[in-house]
Order: sequence, then C-alpha cells, then structure tokens
Amino acid sequence: MAQHVLIIGGVALGPKAACRYKRLQPDGHVTMIDQGSYISYGGCGIPYFVSGDVGSMDALRQTSAHVIRDPEFFEKMRGVEVLTQTRALSINRQQKSVTVENTVSGEKRDLPYDKLVIATGSSPKIPPIPGHDLKNVSTVTCLEAAQAVQSACAARKIQHAVIVGGGFIGLEMAAALADQWGIQTTIIEVLDHLLPAQLSPNLAQMVRHDLEELGITVLTGEKVTELKGKDGAVCQLITDKRTLDADYVIFSVGVTPNSQIAADAGLVCHPRGGIVVNSHMQTSDPDIYAGGDCVVLRNLISGEQSYLPLGSLANRQGRVIATNLAGGDDVFEGMVGTWCVKLNKMNACGTGLTLVQARRAGFDAVAVSMEQLDRAHFYPEKNMMSLEVVVDKPSRRVLGMQGFCVDGIALKARIDAVAAMLQFARPTLNDLANLEVAYAPPFAAAMDVVNTVANVADNVLAGRHKVVGAGEFVSMWERRAENHCVVVDGRPAQAGHELAEKYPGLWLTIPMEELAERMHEIPRDRPVALICNSGSRAYDMQLKMRRAGIDSVNSEGGMQAMKKRGQTF
Amino acid sequence: MAQHVLIIGGVALGPKAACRYKRLQPDGHVTMIDQGSYISYGGCGIPYFVSGDVGSMDALRQTSAHVIRDPEFFEKMRGVEVLTQTRALSINRQQKSVTVENTVSGEKRDLPYDKLVIATGSSPKIPPIPGHDLKNVSTVTCLEAAQAVQSACAARKIQHAVIVGGGFIGLEMAAALADQWGIQTTIIEVLDHLLPAQLSPNLAQMVRHDLEELGITVLTGEKVTELKGKDGAVCQLITDKRTLDADYVIFSVGVTPNSQIAADAGLVCHPRGGIVVNSHMQTSDPDIYAGGDCVVLRNLISGEQSYLPLGSLANRQGRVIATNLAGGDDVFEGMVGTWCVKLNKMNACGTGLTLVQARRAGFDAVAVSMEQLDRAHFYPEKNMMSLEVVVDKPSRRVLGMQGFCVDGIALKARIDAVAAMLQFARPTLNDLANLEVAYAPPFAAAMDVVNTVANVADNVLAGRHKVVGAGEFVSMWERRAENHCVVVDGRPAQAGHELAEKYPGLWLTIPMEELAERMHEIPRDRPVALICNSGSRAYDMQLKMRRAGIDSVNSEGGMQAMKKRGQTF
Repeated sequence: MAQHVLIIGGVALGPKAACRYKRLQPDGHVTMIDQGSYISYGGCGIPYFVSGDVGSMDALRQTSAHVIRDPEFFEKMRGVEVLTQTRALSINRQQKSVTVENTVSGEKRDLPYDKLVIATGSSPKIPPIPGHDLKNVSTVTCLEAAQAVQSACAARKIQHAVIVGGGFIGLEMAAALADQWGIQTTIIEVLDHLLPAQLSPNLAQMVRHDLEELGITVLTGEKVTELKGKDGAVCQLITDKRTLDADYVIFSVGVTPNSQIAADAGLVCHPRGGIVVNSHMQTSDPDIYAGGDCVVLRNLISGEQSYLPLGSLANRQGRVIATNLAGGDDVFEGMVGTWCVKLNKMNACGTGLTLVQARRAGFDAVAVSMEQLDRAHFYPEKNMMSLEVVVDKPSRRVLGMQGFCVDGIALKARIDAVAAMLQFARPTLNDLANLEVAYAPPFAAAMDVVNTVANVADNVLAGRHKVVGAGEFVSMWERRAENHCVVVDGRPAQAGHELAEKYPGLWLTIPMEELAERMHEIPRDRPVALICNSGSRAYDMQLKMRRAGIDSVNSEGGMQAMKKRGQTF
Repeated sequence: MAQHVLIIGGVALGPKAACRYKRLQPDGHVTMIDQGSYISYGGCGIPYFVSGDVGSMDALRQTSAHVIRDPEFFEKMRGVEVLTQTRALSINRQQKSVTVENTVSGEKRDLPYDKLVIATGSSPKIPPIPGHDLKNVSTVTCLEAAQAVQSACAARKIQHAVIVGGGFIGLEMAAALADQWGIQTTIIEVLDHLLPAQLSPNLAQMVRHDLEELGITVLTGEKVTELKGKDGAVCQLITDKRTLDADYVIFSVGVTPNSQIAADAGLVCHPRGGIVVNSHMQTSDPDIYAGGDCVVLRNLISGEQSYLPLGSLANRQGRVIATNLAGGDDVFEGMVGTWCVKLNKMNACGTGLTLVQARRAGFDAVAVSMEQLDRAHFYPEKNMMSLEVVVDKPSRRVLGMQGFCVDGIALKARIDAVAAMLQFARPTLNDLANLEVAYAPPFAAAMDVVNTVANVADNVLAGRHKVVGAGEFVSMWERRAENHCVVVDGRPAQAGHELAEKYPGLWLTIPMEELAERMHEIPRDRPVALICNSGSRAYDMQLKMRRAGIDSVNSEGGMQAMKKRGQTF
C-alpha cells in the first residue's frame, strides 16, 4: 500500500503518524505541512520552560538523544517531506487534493493525496473584550509566545501578571511565574472554583490554598471585562468586581478545535466543533483520517462525544492512524478523561467523571471523599492523600475519581489504576474495594487508600456513615449561631484542647477512647458534627453514638482536609 | 443476623473481619483466638523494623493514631473478645465448635460457633537439613523472631549473615542487614536467579546487581546442605559448592498454608495445601469462611488455583467475609498476582504471569522488554524504567508485566494500571498501547513507557523488530570468537568511541545519523548485533539495514539495560 499520505499539522499527532507510517511503508510518500515555523515540539512543556525547569526552548524540540526535530531531521532521518509556513486553505475531496498557501510568499498551490490526515490541532481562545489585542496580552500554546513570556520574565519586565482562566495551563503558568520569577501573580476564573471541569469544590479549595501559599492571588466567580493600555501595552485589567494592575496578561480559557477546514469540506463535525471520527480514526470520508486536538472522542463512561485536547491522546492516536494507513486494523475506542497537574507543592490528578459531569450525563451520582496515608502508616516516608470517588447510587458503578497529594506520582498510581478499570469495565464499588494493587510497606498500605475510598463510599451509600464535605462542615460551623450545632472532636485530647478552650460548649474534645464514658456530655437537642484527624475514628464514634441514640454527621477527611484547605478554627 | 462468630487467627484477616463484622452487626458476638501473644501486627513491616526505618516493634502493632492493637483494644474499642496463646486443635463441624488449647496451661476446651472464620495464615518453611535447629537460625515472619534478629544486630553480634532464599522477604532482609548494620551478608538461592517466581532472568540480573552494589554476595543455583554449630549456635553454612562463615542464618524459602486443621475437618483443600474457597470466601462448608495466607485463590489469568500469601489480599478478603457474615453479598473473584519490593537503591514490581508461568499455563507466550524514561524527556527529574511485557503470541493478549526502576512509586503506577486491566478484561497489546494514563511532563511521557512497551512488543510480534535480551547479547558477544558476530553501536560517536578502539573491527560505532553514508562499513557475512542507548534508535537502524539487505538483532534496552545489570565491555 505504498501511497501518498498528506498530513496537515506537524506538532504532535502529525509527526507520530508520519514516522510510524514510514516505518511500516518505507516506499510510501509522506508530506507533512504546518503553518508555523516550528514542528514536533512538546507544547505541554511550555510552563516548565517558563519556570526554568526546562533550560532552553530547544529542549522542547529535541529527541531524547538531543537531536532537534526540524524539517531536515524528518526528511533525512525519517524520509518525511516537511513544508513549514504552509497553511492548508481547503480540502478538495473530489480531486483528492489540499489547496495550501505559503504564509510568507502568499503563493498558493494544490497538494495531491491518496490518504489525508487532519492534525490541525486547536487554537487558544481569546475573548473579544476591549484591549485583547494590546501588547503583552497573549496565550501560551505556541513556542513563540512561550519565548516572549520567558524573555519578559528574564528581563524583569513583569511586575504584575494576570492569568485569565483556572484550568491546567493557567495554574501551571501561574506557578511558574510566581515561583521562579517572584512575580505578583493573579489567577482569575469566571466559574466558582479552580479546575471547574476537573474537580469538586472541596478538592479545588485545596488547590487554591496550595497556590495561595506561593503568594498567588486567586479570584473566582469573576469576569474580565476590559484591558486598558498605555503606550500600546496592557497596564490594567478590569473585571466585574475590580481593577487590577497588569503588565502581562495570559489567557488560558480553553481551546477551540481547528475543524473548520474539515467542516468546509463537508466532513461530519460536532455541533460545538471538533471532527467526528470512528474507532479507526477515520472521518466521514474513509480516505481522510483525523486525530488529536481537532477531533471529538467518545467518552467511554457517558457514551457522549467529548473534547479532551491532550498531547498524550494525540500521540497514541497518531500511531493508530499510521497502522491503519498501512493497511492494518488498529482502533482507538475513546477516552475516560485522565489528567494530572503539578501545582505549587501539591499535585492534583483525576479520571472519569466529576460529580457535576456525572449528574449532567444522567447518573444519580454521589461523591465521597476521604484522607488516608498513601503507604503503611508505620513506614517513615508517607503522605496524606485525598481521594474523591464519584459513584452512581442505584448501580454502585464507579464513574470517576479525583485526588490531591504532595506526592504526585503516588497519586497518579491510584488514579491510573482506576482509569484502567474505567476503560475496560463498568467497575462497581466492590471492584474498587478489591482492586489488586501492588503492596509492600514502602509503596502502599495493606488496605490501600484506593480500596479504602471504596469502602467509605460503600458505608455512605448503605446509610451507615453520614458525612458532610469539609466545605459543608465549615459553613455549618460558621452558621452555628443559627443552627446551634456542636462539634465533637474525636482526636486525642491534646490535639483539640485549644479549640475546646476557645469555644466552650461548642467544640467538645472527646477522644474515641473516652466516648463510652463521656457519651452523656454530648447534647441530644442540637445538630452534632463529628471531626477527627482523617475521618476514620469519627466513623467508629458515629456508629457508637447512633446506638446511643445520637445522630451526627462526620466531616470527610477530618482535620487533614481542613489543613489542606488552609482552614483554621 | 446477630450470631456468634469464631475467628481462628488474629494477625491480618482475622482482625479485619472481626472489626468490620462488629460495625455491621453490633449485637453479634465475635471471639478471635490466636496461638501467639501478639495479634494484629504488620508482619510485612518486619524488614523495616530490622533496618531501623521503623523505630520500634510497637509501631507494627499500632493504629495510625498510635494506639496499640492488643486484646484490650479489641475488646474495649471494637467489642471483640480475644483469646491469645490459644491454639485451635480441631474443628467439630457437627457440633459447630472448635477445640482449643491454652498454650501456657495446656487446658483444653470447646468454643462454639454459628459461623467460623479460618484465618490461620501460613508457616515459614525450614528445610530439615542437619543443623536447622541451631541457635541463631530462624525465619522472620513473627515479631518474636524479628526482635531477636534486631537485638542481635544492635548488639553487634552478627558478622556474617546468610539469607537462604531469594524471594521478597529474603531480599528485604538482606538489604536491611547490609545497609543499616554493615553486616557481611550473603543470599543463597537454589534456583538460577533471584525472585525466580516473579522475574525473568534479565530483570533478576538487575536486581542482583543492585544488591551487589550494597556489598551483598549473591549465590544462585546453589543448595544449602548443612549448618554447622559451635556451642549450640550456627557458625558455618555448607552448600553443594562451598562452605561459608555464618553466625546468623535466616530462612526465607517460602511459606506453607496452615490448612491442615481444615483438611482434618474434611474441608476441601488444594492437593499442595491451602483451603479452597468460593468467590464468597466460603469453604466447602457454607458456615465456615476462610481467607488470607491459608487459602488458595483463583488466578484470573490462568484460571488455575494459585497461592499468593500477601497481607493486602488478606485485608481485602477479611472485609468481604465480614460483609457476607452480616448477610451481605460481597465477592472476591481471585487475583492476578501483583507485587512490589524495595531493594537497595532500586525497586522491582510486577503483575500477572511471567514468561515461565505463562508457558506453564499453556500460553504460546513471549516476553519483550525495553527501557524508557518515565517522564517527559525534557523534564529535569526523570528515570530510566525497565518494563517487560508477557504476551500470548496468537491472541496478542497481555498476560503480565514486570519492571525495575529507581523510582518505585513511578514503577508501581505503571504496574498497577496494568494490574487493573488484567483483573477486569483480557487486554490485548492494542489495549495496552492505548491505555489512557494521566499525562503531564512532570509525571509521564506523552507516549508513556507503559504504552511504548506495547508498541515495541507489537513490532516484535509482527517480525519487524528482531530483538535479543540483554543477557543474550552479552553471551553472543562473549562467544564472538566462535560466532564471529559484530556489534554496531548506534549511539553518538563519542559514546561508543572507547569500545570501538578497544575492539577494532568487532565493535563498530555508527551513529544513527551516519548510517546511510556508512552502511557499507557493516560486514554482510557475519551476525550483526545492534545496540544503542535504550534500544529505540537501533530499531530505526535495523529497519534501514534490512532494506539494505543486512539482517540484525537489537539488544533490548540497549546500554541502559547493561548499566543496570552492572555489565561492562
């Protein structure tokens, strides 16, 4: 099947498909075009180049053997013809050609194909507010923009940076600027909390606190309305609530799939953008494949067409496309939505649906969260891990899991195992409770945190364990004048001593060990909220109190969750 | 369903089942008996107590809130009656009672039950060789023995320790003794390599080298025949090949399930020992449950009854048993065999079948191994990870994966994701190639190592990539006088320079970039073995050489694998 393969787009999927196809079909002819000057770069590494962790921009363009992946590399080492600064204008499916334009000379011509691969990627959104075109207002998805930000940092030209958008790139960029360059950095997110598409409000509050610890100002539920300039460069940012000094503004409010060229050619696209492909990554024209940031993918949990622009998905899809181009039969069934992000000292990671997404997809879902050490509690090196599981109540089906931990790799280990379950099965809470993960004290607990979160959820669903989220506990406590609630703190006496003294009659310190003898101290005419160190002792107390006729709610994750939220009492 | 539950065994499964049952059925009566003095301890932590990582033996008996889990704790806090130093002699299924003996007073009595849980665990094997009963010859599965070893170390009474058995506990104990206490330590394994039930010879050689770096002597394929004593204590160990000084000998040659009491009572047991249970963890008598180290479990990949004594499995089974005792319907379907072990600086981890196990189970299996960085190659913090995948050739089904890495948690992340696949599906290489794991540069590569190993195996199975294991490459090289092989080193010239000078005409340094121009330098009348840094460049070279009519084999994992083996040329 030696044929002429034309690939539009040379960043992630394009190069992967090109090289794999040439390995399978050395006699095939491959032309890869890109509208930019740089190809085959690790765009996900941009925040780490800006932060200084990655020493040079070239590192993002090199192979692991430090060879720059430029057009010459692709032509000489891979046998792939590369045309940069070449924009695809239209696909002519009848003639099987693509009309392209040289972005420097303006010259147009038609490039023929036997098979076409659309790997046009996505474009960062910039809201069309007044001042959006001022100098020092940018996005950071291409190397040129990354270089500009990094140079401005290095030249100490930035005093007040504002990041618009509390998604992955926004948080990574904020951490990079505030940590490495000591720049006064603000994140503005229009929705109620950070990572709104990835986390619950409770976990997002932990993310927020971790970034605030680095001196970053986080403003949520706030909308940017205008940018003001001075001498053509941005100097102020105006929201619906305030005016901020801003000499650099980075928009990271999401991306739009570059699928217009496909839609114009009559290929089936999703109403909200993104090319629709089958499991072979073929568009509605069997001679045209598409993948990466320009396509929508089936969410394997909800069954819906979804959009998840990640370089890792693009790379895997590129290989599938190449195999199929060479006459093979490889499939990419869809995705469950697995992600991770490094913050300041902490990390967040997740897979599958959040509670909001699950309910939107029609599930009768509930989320249960908890804190547990990630290794044997007697092993010296260990960390508290926050995990939140999203479950469909009637079927007990696990729909997703999100987490937060100082050890990002340990967190990833739990999330990736759940991600694998979600991809290949419809796991229930029982499956998660018995998920067999590798155990030895330096790596995990005998009853691992990933099993325990299922056990906690099992008890919650059975009605045995009545819980409130950390945020609910805080607002219950803050409104104690109205609701007359009392807190029973089950930690050892010395741990709760100060709070008991500060709030006499409101914050009772009754260690689990003394509960039987001191049950009478707990008022029976007021709402009782339990809290302990991580939540597990208070569960046992709740069971005993229930048998004594005292109803209560237990604060998920206990004081450990409060600490991660930055909450004091 | 308030009833009297009797539990034989109080270490891991017993306490878990007891506490969970009491939470579900506060009115139920639970009696837990154990023949020892200590109950509910973390036996897996013993090597870390001996190494000093865990500061006191009590730490292995405490809850995470530092409360000692002694009989009083269970009685007062959990409502569980505990009888220690109480040995079960026989199960009387007709009367529904167990005859027990007090190990101190010798007094015997019958304890009645409505439901019985057998959690008798396992006993470490001691081969009946002459001298096996000398002083300072022990196993290390109980706290008393652990205390004895640790005290002898602390008193500087051990000069020459010999560990018999190259399994998990043997390696952990060897590392503990050699590292913390500077003791001359030898491991003797009767089979050909360390971790013979868990690893291929190639990965096992990496494990060996890591331990040797700590000064541990490793003797494989060697059988202990006798222990010699002086004043009643061991002083020499004799093998079929040599005599060693030995003032402390630790046997860790596996354990035997304590299932005799069940067999005597007529319960169905496996011919090689171990109680047979159904997915509800019920024995052949529905009123008797069993779990933990005394049962055999279904291997979900081979379908065979297998034995895997791990505390993590015991804990999860304990919860399942308790739920079922309380009238619930929980199942434990079996296991795939997931494990991890911390060595000296390195770690090993695996899941599913090894190549040997797969072939023994009737699969037409092959193993493919590789080396890749565990994070984006441009990210500063990263490590080379070794992964080996075991695949059924006709069906391309993934049967197992094993690995080796300095970052044990990062390795666990990959293995646990594969373990989850193996538990819930019959994944193929394509599934592994597209396994969706969390990606961001500080955590993973865009084409992650766990995906790449599937891609490498895909190319090997397709006949595109002809490989030899690192061990095969070494023996091919060592026999070059007979086979006249030539090595083509595809690393940058400076990397192979010394070897090319040392072995003129035998070790050719031809960097990938120069291959096209220098193809004529490669002899066509001799076997050609390719090697590069990690194996991937040499794959591209192999494809190009094949088109030029030159056949070759590529050394899996390249020089990175050689380095981990401690192999120099």
